[in-house]
Formats: sequence, structure tokens, C-alpha cells
Amino acid sequence: MSSSPNPTMTIPRYEDVLVAHERIKPFIHETPVLTSRFLNELTGAELFFKCENLQKAAAFKVRGACNAVFGLTDAEAKIGVATHSSGNHALSLSYAAGRRGIPVTVVMPSTAPQAKKDAVIGYGGVIVECEPSTSSREAVFADVVAKSGADFVHPYNDPRVIAGQATCAKELVNQVLNLDSVVAPIGGGGMISGTCLTLSTTNPTIKIYAAEPLNADDAARSFKAGHIIADDAPNTVADGLKVPLKDLTWHFVKNHVTDILTATEDEIVAAMKLIWIRMKIVVEPSSAVTLAIILKNPEVFKGKRIGVILTGGNVDLDKLPWMKT
Amino acid sequence: MSSSPNPTMTIPRYEDVLVAHERIKPFIHETPVLTSRFLNELTGAELFFKCENLQKAAAFKVRGACNAVFGLTDAEAKIGVATHSSGNHALSLSYAAGRRGIPVTVVMPSTAPQAKKDAVIGYGGVIVECEPSTSSREAVFADVVAKSGADFVHPYNDPRVIAGQATCAKELVNQVLNLDSVVAPIGGGGMISGTCLTLSTTNPTIKIYAAEPLNADDAARSFKAGHIIADDAPNTVADGLKVPLKDLTWHFVKNHVTDILTATEDEIVAAMKLIWIRMKIVVEPSSAVTLAIILKNPEVFKGKRIGVILTGGNVDLDKLPWMKT
Repeated sequence: MSSSPNPTMTIPRYEDVLVAHERIKPFIHETPVLTSRFLNELTGAELFFKCENLQKAAAFKVRGACNAVFGLTDAEAKIGVATHSSGNHALSLSYAAGRRGIPVTVVMPSTAPQAKKDAVIGYGGVIVECEPSTSSREAVFADVVAKSGADFVHPYNDPRVIAGQATCAKELVNQVLNLDSVVAPIGGGGMISGTCLTLSTTNPTIKIYAAEPLNADDAARSFKAGHIIADDAPNTVADGLKVPLKDLTWHFVKNHVTDILTATEDEIVAAMKLIWIRMKIVVEPSSAVTLAIILKNPEVFKGKRIGVILTGGNVDLDKLPWMKT
Repeated sequence: MSSSPNPTMTIPRYEDVLVAHERIKPFIHETPVLTSRFLNELTGAELFFKCENLQKAAAFKVRGACNAVFGLTDAEAKIGVATHSSGNHALSLSYAAGRRGIPVTVVMPSTAPQAKKDAVIGYGGVIVECEPSTSSREAVFADVVAKSGADFVHPYNDPRVIAGQATCAKELVNQVLNLDSVVAPIGGGGMISGTCLTLSTTNPTIKIYAAEPLNADDAARSFKAGHIIADDAPNTVADGLKVPLKDLTWHFVKNHVTDILTATEDEIVAAMKLIWIRMKIVVEPSSAVTLAIILKNPEVFKGKRIGVILTGGNVDLDKLPWMKT
């Protein structure tokens, strides 16, 4: 099944992924794939966890950010990059710009956690604060770009970013042979789109499942409806997955995703704690939605070899979601 | 410097390590070595973290336990093994016995955390409870061994166990070349003895530093005094490091350790949190004493290439030491 994209969109191709991978290799980790006998027995599947929580800046998003930043000409790079994000994309773009030694401005709501602000500043980013509303964010960001001329690197709806994220699945299928499916979280759809981009070329028989919080299930509803449904400020512990699909990511989702499955908040937190306890790694709630849907849908996953993309590990260790406060 | 060991002791030799490694390979992970640019910059050293928290049962102690269990004859194995421990050795021996399919009995104080008991049972171990006193533990344990004839696998003062632990440093020097020093925690001295056993044969120029909680600094005081000093029930967050040296481990410590350095409780907890935040892995307090002493003694470690053994990752996620309760 294929569909005609919006003619104004630049759809990244697999050749862009190959270029991206060569470009970003010096600045990212080839992250390890970990396994757990306990979780295999619990799920009845063979799970191969691709640990992007052990990536630079503890997030897969450095792949796309590095591809955007290191793909700029010297003249473009000198002017710098900008984005709006209070999450892993903010850290990742700051990391990438810091490695190239170019200016980076991040528009963040004044209410963002101090730890996130400190991390951006630690990587050399400049923060411009806005009010915690879409209108304020857009106005402040437009002003930043108008004044600086900085290149806008969108967190996911950008072909350079998707080509960068696609290097994760490229590594995975090289590290683990004969996968039946790959499961990745879905928010705006950057990681899933990159996964689709790679696998539809290199391993088109591998099924691609997207994992989404039930509390922010706009992608699942979009998938069923056949058009983008965007929710207004959904509330979920998986704070990386609150954003809606956009045209470019929707293109990949509707054409290449097998299904989008959802998990409740309790299921996400339980899966997260299980990963910490059994695998001894720190993952953020967004990462754990993957294991939550695998546990919830044994009829889909039992007996299969499954790549599971753990997308990040940025959590506040003083406010873990299983702690009663 | 060498000294005459007690003639009744069986000192393991490096050949025993080679045999142990072949024997246990199917049952353990070759654990990864992780690095952190942030921690390198913070310490001014190049740190190579050997992640035994990602080992089976989340502890290096499966190495020694597997060597003991899989070195038994079939006749011995049939009768089974026993130990007294409320920590990682209990889990590890249960794991090893479970893999061989032989009986294992663990004498544990009735006050041990339910999570630890559940984990031992989960691996197929049988728990016999004693009162939380040395006299009760010894009486109950003697009774278990007398009745069952089980082989006693001591947590550290056993040549089979030390030869097993020595496989960790053997892997490390294969994974990372040109190390200047190795830092490992010290409690009873099993890991440090294994490290000494391997490095004194394969890489005698590498310095070996032991890291100990100041609140349980009996090994540091023994090292200075030139004879074993055993403390009675020291109190430290690094609960794996409360036990005293014994004759076999003292032999290795006094002959091959460069120095024993100590860290306060606050320093240990801060180092532990730093590892979780920057490396996205779950380590227990005992593991973090290593980074704590490196941070505390820059004059010793700055500019050096240092192997850092993170010994385990078994913590209660509901009671993290930086949480105010």
C-alpha cells in the first residue's frame, strides 16, 4: 500500500539515511542491544532492547539533531539553529550544536523543569523563555528566528531529522538478524517514521508496531480514522509522547505501520519499573510504553523475535512515577 | 612484596581462573564496558566502567557462584550447595544452582527484605530463616549442612569463588588496553582478590585501588595495621561492603593492593546518583564507592586510564538513598 504525499513535502529516502549515518557516526554511540531472560519468559517472546537511553544526551533524538546540524553548510552553521522543545529534542539539538561549535537557541516555557534548563545550558544552548501556551511559544519562536536567521530544526516533522532517527533501526537490523517485528513508541512520530523509512527498504517483511499511551492516543485514532487527529494537551506520564502527528510523519505511519497499540498509565509505569528492576537500566516512561503493549497483547507478540526501541532515559530521579508523593 | 600464606589455605592460581572462565562462560554475560564523556571531564581521568550490574542476577558474584557450582562432580552436585547471605551471593548461588538444576539452601535472617527472599525463591533457592545474630546464623547453618551434606560455598573466602570473580578483570583488560589502574569496591574482598589474582599475572604494572565506605573501613585499617581488623556490624548504605576480610582475601589484599581509599555516606550516595543520571544505569551503593573515591582523590587518578568495576545493581527502587523518607 502506498499513497501520494503532499507535493510540498520532501520525503526522505533511504539514501538520505546512508548519508546521515556516515555524517553522524563520530558524534553518536552505536547503542547496545540488551536482552533479559526474565522478560523473555514473562512475555513468551524474544525481546531485543535497542538502548537509546544509553545514547548521547540519553535520547535517540541526537541522531536527527546531529544530522540536521552537521548537514548545514559552514555559512548556514555560523548563523546557528533554533527549536522549541522542553524535552529531549532541546537537549539533543544543544548537544549537536555544541559538538559543531555553533549557536543554538531553544524556546522553552518558563514553567519547564530547572533540570531540563540546566541540561540545555550545560550543552551550551541559549534558552529564550515563553509563556506555557502555544500562542506565546509560536510568537516568541518566530521572533527568535526573524532576529537571528537561525535554521529551524523541528523535533520530528523534518526530513533531516527523520533520516537521522532512521539510523537507529539500521543499526538494530545489523545487530539482530531475523526480527519478526519492531516496536517503538509514537508521539509526533519521528522515531516510528525513521523506523519505517529504514525497514521498508532493507527489511520490508518486518512488522512495525507503534506503542502509545491510551491517555494520548491521537496517533492510534488517526490511524483508524485515516487522517491526522491532533489532541490538545493530553496528560500522560510518558511526557515525550504528548505531541501530535504532522504531515511528514503521518505519511510514514499510514503507509508502513502495522498497528498502533495503547497502554494505560498504570501499565506504562509497571513496565518502566520492570525494566529498571530486571535490566538495571534507567529508562523514561515513554520508552516503557513498548514493553507495556507487548505484555498486554501476547496474541500479537508471543513466539516472535522483537526489536524494542527504548528511546530515552531522561527522568527526574527525585520524582519517580511509582513513588507516592 | 610477597608473604607466606597460611599453609592450610588453598591459594587459587591464574590457571584456576582460565579453567573457571571456560566453565562459567555459558552461564554469565561478558558484561559491557561503558564510558561517559561527562564523568571523564568531571574527574579529569579516562574511566572505563565494567558493568557487572548488567551481569546475570545483577551481580559479579554469579561468576564465583557458577565456578563453585559447575566445578562440583555429579555426585557432589546431587547433594547440593548451601550458604548464608542476605545479599547478592544468595541470589547468585541460587541462580547458579538453578542453572545446574541442583538443590540450594540459603540461610537468611528472618529480618531480610521480602524482595531479596522472593528473588532467591524465584531462582529456585530454599530459604531457612535464622535470627538476625551471628550465633543464630552459625547454629542454623551448621544444622543445615549437617543434615543435608550440602557443599558450603562461602561468599568470598573460597578459592573457587575468588577464581570466578577473577574472570571479571580478565575480561576487562581484554576489552580495554593500557589501563593505569583498576578500582573496585572492597567488603569481604572477593572481587578485589580476584582482580589481584588476574592482574598480578597478566598486567602486574596496573595499580589496584580498593574503595571502601568510611563507615565500614575495617579493610583500610587492616591494610595500614598489617593484620585483619574485623568490625562488628558497621552501618553503611553500601550494604554489600559490611563484611570483614578473611585469611584468603587478606592474602591478596596485603600482597597486591596499591591502596585502600574511603568515602563518606554522602559521597557514596552522590556518586551513585551521578552514575544513574549521567550513565542511565541502575547501580547499588556498593558499586558507587568506586566513583566516590575517584572524585575525592584527583591527585591519585587525574590523567590516568582507570578501569572501574561496578559490582551490582540490586537496589530497592521504592527506597532510594537520596529520597527523604
